[in-house]
Amino acid sequence: MTYSQRIKTIFSQLDEPVDIILLRNSSDPFIDPTFFYVTGIKKGLFEGCSILLGPDGSSHLLVSNLEEPLVPIGQKSTCFSSKKEYTDLLTELLTDCNTVGINTAMTLYDEYQQLRQLIPEKKLISISQAVKNTRIIKDEEELHQIQEACHIADQVMTKIPTFFSTSLTEHELAATIDHQLKLQGASSSAFETISSFGINTAKPHYTSGNKKIQPGDFIICDFGATVNHYHSDTTRTFVYGSASKKQKQIHQTVLNAQQQALNHIKPGVNANTIHQIANDTINATEFKGYFIHSTGHSLGLNVHDSGIGFAPHYQTPLQSGMVLTVEPGIYIPTIGGVRIEDDIVVSPDGYIQLTQSPKQLIEIPTK
Amino acid sequence: MTYSQRIKTIFSQLDEPVDIILLRNSSDPFIDPTFFYVTGIKKGLFEGCSILLGPDGSSHLLVSNLEEPLVPIGQKSTCFSSKKEYTDLLTELLTDCNTVGINTAMTLYDEYQQLRQLIPEKKLISISQAVKNTRIIKDEEELHQIQEACHIADQVMTKIPTFFSTSLTEHELAATIDHQLKLQGASSSAFETISSFGINTAKPHYTSGNKKIQPGDFIICDFGATVNHYHSDTTRTFVYGSASKKQKQIHQTVLNAQQQALNHIKPGVNANTIHQIANDTINATEFKGYFIHSTGHSLGLNVHDSGIGFAPHYQTPLQSGMVLTVEPGIYIPTIGGVRIEDDIVVSPDGYIQLTQSPKQLIEIPTK
Repeated sequence: MTYSQRIKTIFSQLDEPVDIILLRNSSDPFIDPTFFYVTGIKKGLFEGCSILLGPDGSSHLLVSNLEEPLVPIGQKSTCFSSKKEYTDLLTELLTDCNTVGINTAMTLYDEYQQLRQLIPEKKLISISQAVKNTRIIKDEEELHQIQEACHIADQVMTKIPTFFSTSLTEHELAATIDHQLKLQGASSSAFETISSFGINTAKPHYTSGNKKIQPGDFIICDFGATVNHYHSDTTRTFVYGSASKKQKQIHQTVLNAQQQALNHIKPGVNANTIHQIANDTINATEFKGYFIHSTGHSLGLNVHDSGIGFAPHYQTPLQSGMVLTVEPGIYIPTIGGVRIEDDIVVSPDGYIQLTQSPKQLIEIPTK
Repeated sequence: MTYSQRIKTIFSQLDEPVDIILLRNSSDPFIDPTFFYVTGIKKGLFEGCSILLGPDGSSHLLVSNLEEPLVPIGQKSTCFSSKKEYTDLLTELLTDCNTVGINTAMTLYDEYQQLRQLIPEKKLISISQAVKNTRIIKDEEELHQIQEACHIADQVMTKIPTFFSTSLTEHELAATIDHQLKLQGASSSAFETISSFGINTAKPHYTSGNKKIQPGDFIICDFGATVNHYHSDTTRTFVYGSASKKQKQIHQTVLNAQQQALNHIKPGVNANTIHQIANDTINATEFKGYFIHSTGHSLGLNVHDSGIGFAPHYQTPLQSGMVLTVEPGIYIPTIGGVRIEDDIVVSPDGYIQLTQSPKQLIEIPTK
């Protein structure tokens, strides 16, 4: 799909038509990735820049002088070098429009009100749902970017056992993972890398600290690569030294739960059904009650893309082209946790797994 | 200042009183750092969590079960494990309140509207300005965190000449900088590290690419460390090999502009005056017109903290405790650019410089 077609698709999804759509980026980190979706711009954040989209698939970028050198050839744009120049330009370009579509899901309340005051006579209409509906199905170019981000994460994940030494801390491992992601071609890590050891693995949202590795520790590595604004997100659990029988049981249970969930992914199945299957698989074992989060989220230009997820409140049928994570886990405060996470794309026959690093429980030799 | 005092200060700055303040985090990256300001929480993002603040300086955290293990001891909190539990809890806690303060500058429009529907009988009042006014003056603990972030950045900046080899690319240098920041103790890089060579240095918002270093290239390194949610932001410009006379002139001009700006920083001086001084210094030379951005921005829990900056539209007097960057630059498309950036805190006598790495033009030996 070309960028022009993406824009037309957004317009075609609107409940209430608009004359024009205005997307605006605030300051980092308050950036709307839809900006990159409709332009294909791969580098730069374009803080404080806007883009106007027409129903014919056209786009007109309003770009600050600082970002102008990053505008790709062929992209229609007008440069501004002060706030006044920007507002003058914007009001001029909106002269003939009565209705302006706004992605209110990614717009700060104060910025919306400033726009409201700038163009009080125009009707502002939320286009968030149409953007979500469009972005939820990834096209070929998007899948290519996500696949590349997955490939980079796989390469790093596969090397993790080689990063260990007897005095390694969680934070040092996270630093190594992030460095390797960049060396493999990621522009950055997709989010703050999780590298937890021992009982810290029982805290799903713990990131990393100064704990040193100890024989017998579970190790959770949860990270992703960012490539041209797209993300991957994968998790593997290791044991430092020999795994206990209990550790092997926990890991195998999570692996079973993930496989059961994967087995049922295909177009038409409701997303929450997949979560229910993973949850039921774990709750049928002695680890009942220890799976404490949802089974997955949509993935793309946002690490947590909106609109779909393997969670109880998404009674939404899966469609081909949706990209999601599948990440069941078991967390026992006194022992630690296990999570296994892969990225998949829903395909006509079921799903295609995008992340590919080995899933069996790897015991990392102590030195 | 204790966290309780920070909360009381926000209430004391309100134009229109409120019974309670509600801060809510959305998904990463739409997180309101004010959440960390009022709690002192140093680890974790607390996605989807909220905090209620009382005029007596009290705070009550509404925390998801995933984030609960990260709540510090002594922080009053109630855990929820579903959206319904959250909304039930929130409406119950707001029962006796008529007016609820919202940080609308950091709240997404759709999330504001969801809250509006959840509690239609309450009056929602923006408290953004009071938050800005309070956060703009850093207290001792904040300065300590920023100083630590500056120290880490300084250590890495000082080592940059040792990272070079004949085939180094911009992207590899950025990866090394980010790795070193983490090894020195940063939780992450403060923003996407800028590492540009040659004529790419003439693009202020270019980050890094595959360009290999060439003798005679300008090198701009612009990065910062994040420490406990606080940031630093510093820039130095190097030359690979021997600097030409023109390169030395450009660098010296930027250095003069920065020194002139620094010389005039003290409480009571308007922020835009400092920009004017830097701009005038450059415009009095042959490089007139090549300084194309503002001279600095406020720095703290956001890399671009709001409310003040060394820019034409801030006719605001400086006050002790404000932390800002001072970063003039010259950008000539055919030659390249120079930027020198330090972080300072306004002090009763003038300013204290927080970043300390050497500023003179360093010529990195070619191998």
